[in-house]
Amino acid sequence: MHQISHDTRHCIEECLRCYQACVGSAMTHCLEQGGIHVEPQHFRLIMACGEMCRTSAHLMLINSPHHKAVCRECAEICELCAHNCDRIGDMQECAEACRRCAESCQKIAAYE
Amino acid sequence: MHQISHDTRHCIEECLRCYQACVGSAMTHCLEQGGIHVEPQHFRLIMACGEMCRTSAHLMLINSPHHKAVCRECAEICELCAHNCDRIGDMQECAEACRRCAESCQKIAAYE
Amino acid sequence: MHQISHDTRHCIEECLRCYQACVGSAMTHCLEQGGIHVEPQHFRLIMACGEMCRTSAHLMLINSPHHKAVCRECAEICELCAHNCDRIGDMQECAEACRRCAESCQKIAAYE
Amino acid sequence: MHQISHDTRHCIEECLRCYQACVGSAMTHCLEQGGIHVEPQHFRLIMACGEMCRTSAHLMLINSPHHKAVCRECAEICELCAHNCDRIGDMQECAEACRRCAESCQKIAAYE
Repeated sequence: MHQISHDTRHCIEECLRCYQACVGSAMTHCLEQGGIHVEPQHFRLIMACGEMCRTSAHLMLINSPHHKAVCRECAEICELCAHNCDRIGDMQECAEACRRCAESCQKIAAYE
Repeated sequence: MHQISHDTRHCIEECLRCYQACVGSAMTHCLEQGGIHVEPQHFRLIMACGEMCRTSAHLMLINSPHHKAVCRECAEICELCAHNCDRIGDMQECAEACRRCAESCQKIAAYE
Repeated sequence: MHQISHDTRHCIEECLRCYQACVGSAMTHCLEQGGIHVEPQHFRLIMACGEMCRTSAHLMLINSPHHKAVCRECAEICELCAHNCDRIGDMQECAEACRRCAESCQKIAAYE
Repeated sequence: MHQISHDTRHCIEECLRCYQACVGSAMTHCLEQGGIHVEPQHFRLIMACGEMCRTSAHLMLINSPHHKAVCRECAEICELCAHNCDRIGDMQECAEACRRCAESCQKIAAYE
């Protein structure tokens, strides 16, 4: 991964961490808890967030210039997912991963 | 897939068709041809296009409201990939799939 | 997709159809219905089945010889998912897509 | 990710590391180097290995019992990819990530 910058590598790491937190939380914690944790709007958001993070990481690994627009969208969905995790409660690990990923993706999206 | 509209189902189909054309063309035709077909800029674009199409389809299947922004980005990358396939030559199947997918994604992205 | 055989192309289609049925059913029908439809064992199986189908299609598009072992595993998980959809009820579309995909994957896995 | 065991978490990490090494090396190093680095058999293997690692991680995050068969197949393809990276040369980072991932996946596949 020679031509990939330090900041991009860091963002790939944050995206894959957030992907793990989202899919892992949804498919274990949320399904086991049930109730508000499997409400469609919440569950869709956390799964959509996981998929966006997985894809943002992939486009950065491909070294495609299109990763910036994807990172911008990823940052938005991560922010929403973090807020939603706070609202649902008992989802701190996922909310924190989303906030870190959003910050990292915003930085990448803002590059010249 | 009861709550998914006819237009969205159609767009999912076009995205998965374009994904197949991009990844299939890159990993068989382009690799076998070599030369201009494996030039980094072209190869990255076709693989990035395939990934965006795969992800747009996934977000529509999740029924997430975020699919619109992803479809908008997908349409842009599909247009670029179609032009690039024309430039490279001998990539008509892929170029056509990209144009159809771009048109379908633009329609979804433009919905109220 | 010049070097991809007719049977392989057909299997890619069935895998992507089953992927759509699994993820689409889980994220719309099952989440909306709730109750037995979001029981962890069922929901994990349908999401795992969708992911296996997506990946089997991808390995066939890559034209990798490893697709056979992946198709064998995909056929097994599709069979289980079909049975589970029958058990849950009201999941005929998904069950049928799983059965067709399993049959197609078994054929690919059995090739010399 | 409460119910996911320590060994499984470790394997998810190794899979995502190997996925990054494979896709990152293929799409930057191999495409830039050209020649033997874009020979179809090598390039397909490294991309297939990346996809298998990505999927193994996903099935472990889903907490599906099917991850074991997928990890077994992932270990095999990682071993082959490591050997092939040694043969091609100048791919040590990727070869090492493949070997570590293979070891971790074998351990998961061998669990009772």
